[in-house]
Amino acid sequence: MAAKPSIPKGTRDFGPEQMGKRNFILQTIREVYQKYGFQPLETPAMENLSVLTGKYGDEGDTLLFKILNSGDFLSDTSEADYKAGYKTVLPKVAKKGLRYDLTVPFARYVVMNQSEISFPFKRYQIQPVWRADRPQKGRYQEFYQCDADVVGTDSLICEAEIVAMMEEVLQKLALQNFVIKINNRKVLAGMAEAIGASGKEGALCVAIDKLDKIGLDQVKKELLERDFSESAVAQLEPMLFVSGNNEERLQGMKALLGASEIGKKGIEELEETFRLMRVAGISYSHVEIDFTLARGLAYYTGAIFEVKVLGSGIGSISGGGRYDDLTGVFGLPGVSGVGFSFGVDRVYDVMEEQQVFPADSLQSTQVLFINFDQTTQDYCLPLLQQLRAANIKAEIFPHKAKIGKQMTYANNKRIPYVVLAGSEEMQQGKLTLKEMESGAQSLISPQELVEKMLGR
Amino acid sequence: MAAKPSIPKGTRDFGPEQMGKRNFILQTIREVYQKYGFQPLETPAMENLSVLTGKYGDEGDTLLFKILNSGDFLSDTSEADYKAGYKTVLPKVAKKGLRYDLTVPFARYVVMNQSEISFPFKRYQIQPVWRADRPQKGRYQEFYQCDADVVGTDSLICEAEIVAMMEEVLQKLALQNFVIKINNRKVLAGMAEAIGASGKEGALCVAIDKLDKIGLDQVKKELLERDFSESAVAQLEPMLFVSGNNEERLQGMKALLGASEIGKKGIEELEETFRLMRVAGISYSHVEIDFTLARGLAYYTGAIFEVKVLGSGIGSISGGGRYDDLTGVFGLPGVSGVGFSFGVDRVYDVMEEQQVFPADSLQSTQVLFINFDQTTQDYCLPLLQQLRAANIKAEIFPHKAKIGKQMTYANNKRIPYVVLAGSEEMQQGKLTLKEMESGAQSLISPQELVEKMLGR
Repeated sequence: MAAKPSIPKGTRDFGPEQMGKRNFILQTIREVYQKYGFQPLETPAMENLSVLTGKYGDEGDTLLFKILNSGDFLSDTSEADYKAGYKTVLPKVAKKGLRYDLTVPFARYVVMNQSEISFPFKRYQIQPVWRADRPQKGRYQEFYQCDADVVGTDSLICEAEIVAMMEEVLQKLALQNFVIKINNRKVLAGMAEAIGASGKEGALCVAIDKLDKIGLDQVKKELLERDFSESAVAQLEPMLFVSGNNEERLQGMKALLGASEIGKKGIEELEETFRLMRVAGISYSHVEIDFTLARGLAYYTGAIFEVKVLGSGIGSISGGGRYDDLTGVFGLPGVSGVGFSFGVDRVYDVMEEQQVFPADSLQSTQVLFINFDQTTQDYCLPLLQQLRAANIKAEIFPHKAKIGKQMTYANNKRIPYVVLAGSEEMQQGKLTLKEMESGAQSLISPQELVEKMLGR
Repeated sequence: MAAKPSIPKGTRDFGPEQMGKRNFILQTIREVYQKYGFQPLETPAMENLSVLTGKYGDEGDTLLFKILNSGDFLSDTSEADYKAGYKTVLPKVAKKGLRYDLTVPFARYVVMNQSEISFPFKRYQIQPVWRADRPQKGRYQEFYQCDADVVGTDSLICEAEIVAMMEEVLQKLALQNFVIKINNRKVLAGMAEAIGASGKEGALCVAIDKLDKIGLDQVKKELLERDFSESAVAQLEPMLFVSGNNEERLQGMKALLGASEIGKKGIEELEETFRLMRVAGISYSHVEIDFTLARGLAYYTGAIFEVKVLGSGIGSISGGGRYDDLTGVFGLPGVSGVGFSFGVDRVYDVMEEQQVFPADSLQSTQVLFINFDQTTQDYCLPLLQQLRAANIKAEIFPHKAKIGKQMTYANNKRIPYVVLAGSEEMQQGKLTLKEMESGAQSLISPQELVEKMLGR
């Protein structure tokens, strides 16, 4: 019975300290999303496997957590099924799974509620997702995603506002050295077209994505192995080294894309996005065009975003893009949308690394009343309720204990003020307020305590 | 591929409207918990089945959602297992389950972190739980619990403060006609002892719990069938009809309990709890002693709480009590605690019934800029960013569309103000602000717009 309890690998408890920091991040994100007109949505943790399966590729399907049917889960199976193996048995013993991301549930929601939704629909969603990945440092089986998407419009204002939201969130979190990378899927298609490898942007991107790591020669080698021609590879080379500021990069790439219609369209979209940011007065000092950025290629059809933090060992902390057919798989074609997401765990890790969490992110008590004995306790109780009535977070140590223990409690909980009211204080109708950081003590009246705690 | 998607029975999506109302409830609860010194904790949705199984009775075990092991989940099973049936197969194909409540994960957390925790530990936890109950009206397979517990003290200040928190939350939610019922497990034990049926308070409570429904005669009949003696039943009768105000009830029951030590202790605890509320100035006008209240009898050892809403068809919306051995099952005995929980879904339903949700609980945009064409759009974009910089929730309809469609969008999203800026407004450097409810329009400057939206 009394075995040492444990939690599943790849999952975590979040105690008060971590919760304070996480809530600071989530609340910052939530407020910015709301300020830009996004409304909250929550979907159930459990989805029907018919909704989830086939949406994340073969590997994704194996990483879905499946929920065993209730009761006699074997009732639909036969001995022959059992002998055929788990793949045959699976669909007969599990009908539900845990959500793998927030995008598919969102698409399902849009399709199921299309007649009530007022398009364009701007929704944000902050919930955990579950993946049966092998647990390792920084990779969890349960983690939060913070998505914001607009569906039902192809306006590039949405792209400009995504940059604005990324900038505002990261500024508010005081994150240092971040870069918002932006590209456009159509430019990638144009690059493939311009070098005579139309439709091969998949292989192209896989290769050029490694440029930083393996260097130009290896990238070229890989492309040749993947049946790109010598001349294609030669034509590609200058595209990988388009440089200068964003304007110069746009001009540089435009020249290299030649007559590719789709490539031109991609450049135009990027130009218009920058124009909108400029007109609106959106800060884009951290934005950098990166023509090698290819995140989620199979999925995106327009803009592609990714946020990296320079000098941190952590991958991207945010990303997104435009997709033209989110809901097609559920029978509602032609709904264009654009969205992005913050990876809370990575943002958390970077903020720890950069030590930028505010000191007051721990949501704790502001003042603790020390409990000497029943008489002083009874003296303190109405003062305590008075503080709470003034919306001040306050508590009394609930039973008599050594003062050292009560002080340790205050320290551990990072309570900044402690009230000591012994017989002397009581006689004068006063109390001693101790500031925990400085150790300074002062004899004040209950009214002065309330005023001080309210910061007046 | 394009099959109509659905969600599992007993689960729900929460769209913007419901999210606004739910967040109002959760935020109210959260703020009160924090004000009383409780700190947030979150535990993973998935727990090891070894932690969950056996904690909720046999029925509870069948209602746990179990997660199929990843990969070849049959690898640990044999054909003999298969033939033996699902109960033999179950432990070999599932090691994890979804949490069933927040209490067991909390107990597990306390045991796993006992050396770091500063006791008394006051934690709150607001997370969904999952139960494979048959879905029906008002009963869901996924629903939120909002628990607050203090462990590591037996101080009755905690009981008094639970009443204070219940009062404050329900007052802030503007809920009408609620009653906070309170009893003490020791009084129930004393009642059994006093009528000569020591240790039979389980059967006693099951019977008297039905008094309202089936009447006194049937209750007596049931007790006799359960081997209570005629004289025991006769002695019990006046205990069921102890009446008057709380003070009178305490005195009345005290007289009837005679020499029962445990019964006396229960009365004393209730008296002290009321004394503390009085001393502290905690409002207890909704508190009513109910000696037939027996919620979670097997579990509680001291105070028992329950909140009911008179005249609503909905059961209790909050409940809790004191337990003396929460963590014993995980190897840490002797940790006394007391806690309670709000049932958010039921609170929500009662608030809908009583129509007490505030009009502004929908967290929506405050002002929408109408999009006439690119020129006016470009005129509006910097104003929009100016509003956002002043922390005003604002958006622009992202593409040109019929004005009627844009107005409908504003109405559906309950946006109170709409900005129209056509060529005339632009020439004057002004804009037209339309108040959606009254229809009133005014020509104002951008600065006036900001001031007005800030409520200055």
